[in-house]
Amino acid sequence: MHDKKAVVLSSGGIDSTTAMAIAKAEGYKIYSLSFNYGQRHSFELKKASEVAKFFNAKAHLIINVDLRKIGGSALTSDINVPQSSIFNLQSSIPITYVPARNTIFLSLALAWAEVLEAEDIFIGVNAIDYSGYPDCRPEYINAFEKMANLATKAGVEGKSHIKIHTPLINLTKGEIIKKGILLGVDYSLTSSCYSPDKDGNPCGLCDSCQFRLKGFKEAGIKDPLNY
Amino acid sequence: MHDKKAVVLSSGGIDSTTAMAIAKAEGYKIYSLSFNYGQRHSFELKKASEVAKFFNAKAHLIINVDLRKIGGSALTSDINVPQSSIFNLQSSIPITYVPARNTIFLSLALAWAEVLEAEDIFIGVNAIDYSGYPDCRPEYINAFEKMANLATKAGVEGKSHIKIHTPLINLTKGEIIKKGILLGVDYSLTSSCYSPDKDGNPCGLCDSCQFRLKGFKEAGIKDPLNY
Repeated sequence: MHDKKAVVLSSGGIDSTTAMAIAKAEGYKIYSLSFNYGQRHSFELKKASEVAKFFNAKAHLIINVDLRKIGGSALTSDINVPQSSIFNLQSSIPITYVPARNTIFLSLALAWAEVLEAEDIFIGVNAIDYSGYPDCRPEYINAFEKMANLATKAGVEGKSHIKIHTPLINLTKGEIIKKGILLGVDYSLTSSCYSPDKDGNPCGLCDSCQFRLKGFKEAGIKDPLNY
Repeated sequence: MHDKKAVVLSSGGIDSTTAMAIAKAEGYKIYSLSFNYGQRHSFELKKASEVAKFFNAKAHLIINVDLRKIGGSALTSDINVPQSSIFNLQSSIPITYVPARNTIFLSLALAWAEVLEAEDIFIGVNAIDYSGYPDCRPEYINAFEKMANLATKAGVEGKSHIKIHTPLINLTKGEIIKKGILLGVDYSLTSSCYSPDKDGNPCGLCDSCQFRLKGFKEAGIKDPLNY
């Protein structure tokens, strides 16, 4: 039990931090993985480092991968981040979607897992209170897992048991926060905003802030951040 | 026919260059994609640019993704590249294998394809004269394609038709070179060596050089490079 290693994708936000708390509670040693991908909100990397320390992670790797060159998203290009109401969100995939982002991030997690000889990858995707992103759906995650088990050395030898853990996939944002609080998460360490100011304070208006605020409201808990 | 776009993974080597020639011959507009991933042999990026120009590519993107942080391979760490005989190669996966490399590269190709609204990705993997890499096998490629068709916006809408083209998968190295010559490829533009000298001249001793030399011998053609 105590030698289990998990690679946990961490953005320093609510979901990935809660996923990390769950991995920790399940007895995994934490290997936190974040990305500097040209996002506007690179403040999140500072928060991800604090979160990794909070969970006593064995390592926290920040990989540079320049998705700005590919573009196609408000998060990695000069398109403005919309200040939309979350009530309009489900009608279509928003322009904050970053093409194939989870596929890219999970692929890099798979590479690190192979080097670490870890079989467990945690990702805080959510199919309930989500932004309609295609790469947060269970059928996508299942397909990634199947591919991953053919992709590595162990896959050739028929000894691959990569498991993509999605402990939040069926929870509402409020349920995620309640679960995190029960596990002792300090959400003041996290950041969710797509457009924070230069001090890292959240805008309170972007999709991600609105989901966060709605979640805290549902959980009946005050968000510790300053809006 | 003339508006078809293909993202072609290009390392500036024999296989990806031949795959690009095949895509071009099939009427695709070429979007060449290369990676600066911390490989020792970054000379290949210069060759990949020359190859992209040769095929009149619409764009050639070089994405930085620092796989050195992940390590686990002689190509991205301080492990020495072995000067082994190819006759010993099939017994196990060599240490030049880079963990999950094709998964990472194909994921980034998928992202670019989504932005370009392209449905076709070409990769020069080969399951015959290959180095025993897990992510060159047909079953792996099929699993990646299935995952890719669930990963993007079009996947949500049920309109995804991503195709991973592997035109070399069943060819020997000699057959690949013969096919490329028929399509007019100038192999003097290519580089295959894992450990070229500072002028880019190949060592002639690493696995990759030995596969290349064996291929030219089989094809009955002289390799234009200076060993």
